[in-house]
Amino acid sequence: MTSSASVSFLNEARRVAIFGGTHGNEMSGITLVNMWIKNGDEIQRNGVETKPFITNPRAVEKCTRYVDTDLNRAFTTENLSAPSKEDLPYEVKRAQQINLLFGPKGSPNAYDVIFDLHNTTSNMGCTLILESSSDHFNLQMMHYIKEAIAPDCCRVLLTEHPLLKYSTSRSVAKHPIGLEVGPQPHGVLRSNIFEAMRLVVKHALDFIELFNQGLEFRPCTLDVFRVSEKMDYPRDTNGNIIAMVHPHLQDCDWEPLNPGEPIFQMFDGTSICYEGVGTVYPTFINEAAYYEKQQAFVTTRRETLAARAIKKAHD
Amino acid sequence: MTSSASVSFLNEARRVAIFGGTHGNEMSGITLVNMWIKNGDEIQRNGVETKPFITNPRAVEKCTRYVDTDLNRAFTTENLSAPSKEDLPYEVKRAQQINLLFGPKGSPNAYDVIFDLHNTTSNMGCTLILESSSDHFNLQMMHYIKEAIAPDCCRVLLTEHPLLKYSTSRSVAKHPIGLEVGPQPHGVLRSNIFEAMRLVVKHALDFIELFNQGLEFRPCTLDVFRVSEKMDYPRDTNGNIIAMVHPHLQDCDWEPLNPGEPIFQMFDGTSICYEGVGTVYPTFINEAAYYEKQQAFVTTRRETLAARAIKKAHD
Ligand SMILES: [Zn+2]
Ligand SMILES: [Zn+2]
Repeated sequence: MTSSASVSFLNEARRVAIFGGTHGNEMSGITLVNMWIKNGDEIQRNGVETKPFITNPRAVEKCTRYVDTDLNRAFTTENLSAPSKEDLPYEVKRAQQINLLFGPKGSPNAYDVIFDLHNTTSNMGCTLILESSSDHFNLQMMHYIKEAIAPDCCRVLLTEHPLLKYSTSRSVAKHPIGLEVGPQPHGVLRSNIFEAMRLVVKHALDFIELFNQGLEFRPCTLDVFRVSEKMDYPRDTNGNIIAMVHPHLQDCDWEPLNPGEPIFQMFDGTSICYEGVGTVYPTFINEAAYYEKQQAFVTTRRETLAARAIKKAHD
Repeated sequence: MTSSASVSFLNEARRVAIFGGTHGNEMSGITLVNMWIKNGDEIQRNGVETKPFITNPRAVEKCTRYVDTDLNRAFTTENLSAPSKEDLPYEVKRAQQINLLFGPKGSPNAYDVIFDLHNTTSNMGCTLILESSSDHFNLQMMHYIKEAIAPDCCRVLLTEHPLLKYSTSRSVAKHPIGLEVGPQPHGVLRSNIFEAMRLVVKHALDFIELFNQGLEFRPCTLDVFRVSEKMDYPRDTNGNIIAMVHPHLQDCDWEPLNPGEPIFQMFDGTSICYEGVGTVYPTFINEAAYYEKQQAFVTTRRETLAARAIKKAHD
């Protein structure tokens, strides 16, 4: 077998969108996208059409996560095929519009790449969100970004999971990429978080330009954290939380957590310990928006994925 | 003049309220007050009636700062005397109810002390908010708390200002005390912030108990930061912000800022410097809720207040 025989030839990634404001109070992505809508020089690349886009303008206007329902859970087949009616929730109507503009989801006409920019109150640093372990274009892109950003850190969260995966705004594209950067309180713009997000997008677009120019990316491996289980706060029978994230866990996203180590602290000071099996790596620890989703954090497990060599297919 | 001649004899502080949820997404105060409503043992003191109270339950329910208008600006004479009508904003109606329960504001029947518990996204640590430099009861209480909490830090922000003072929920009481603790993202409960707030309230109640028992508090001085000027973000003609808090200022609440030092960073990296006169001490730096109030931070100036000796008056 020659070296070229093991290369996957993929279509060029000509149409790229950058989404901000999928959650209307996550200010770094909103500010970057609004800035690029005014002046897109910094996101132009040879052979790439890049479209910055505010996905939930009404939520952005109100500086709230959403108006009627979470847009980033709204891109289900059911919603996207629902008959247009006046009384659909705002975000469902908006999902249908976005699907027409950037999809249709799952079709050959869909955008090649969508970056969806998010912020979190969790201490997650720069996190790329990967939806499929077999998307070799994305595996190669994420590998490229991690190398480019070193010695700074950029983790990859793999959301492939039978129950915990959901229908994101970016899922309209052939290659969906989520970018979470934190910690940043919702409604606040922090310059360090803004610049970290901007730099990841820069490297991502550089990768796409190189790919479209015909550069071959060699086989490589990618360390990822695969979503494992969702952990809720301890609650009373009325659903009110009765414990806080333990100070030993707070802000320790991506650090190993072992059975017997504390995860929650009751108001009387007693600890509740992790009772799972083996070492896990918690993330999204104490994210503001996840109280209503009954999630204090998610556990992940480390895994190494193999990325095939890729190269642009000849037209 | 004998030593007793210089003592101010004040009425005992029998009726004390602790307000949480004046802003419905500031979770430490809300959680503490709800906890104390269920079980108030920890806030009981001899000779003191302490009432924990959620001031804006609808906003707490929705985990939002307010429903119609900011409750913590609503206690104006105009609002409190407005005829009850169905179409008053929710928070104005609520202010009237609170004024009946804990006031009337300015009357002899008003509560003696109200603590109003707030959180901020700013890196302010524990901050006591003092509304009047001539409230010697509060001066003595804040001095007591600062000593009790040392070597940890608890600053005093004096909001006495011809333009920047506003009509707070706590202003219903004879002795209003605001407590701001941060940094904590809105909608998030952090155990370190929760415990810091709990400890300040403990010392405050201890002070009141000692005062009511007849202990004399000696003359002392109190270092405060007096609100000086409100600084907005640089904005374009549409009101959109065009710069961020500078990384050299971000999280540096209470640290000296001198003319010529950077306060904002434009998106192209250029800095905007402070152009005021003399050294100031910024605070409420990059508080989420103040974007809509056109405030990036407030400057303060240091001042030392003299507190008179106080003692409970004999009945
Ligand atoms: Zn988000
Ligand atoms: Zn507040």
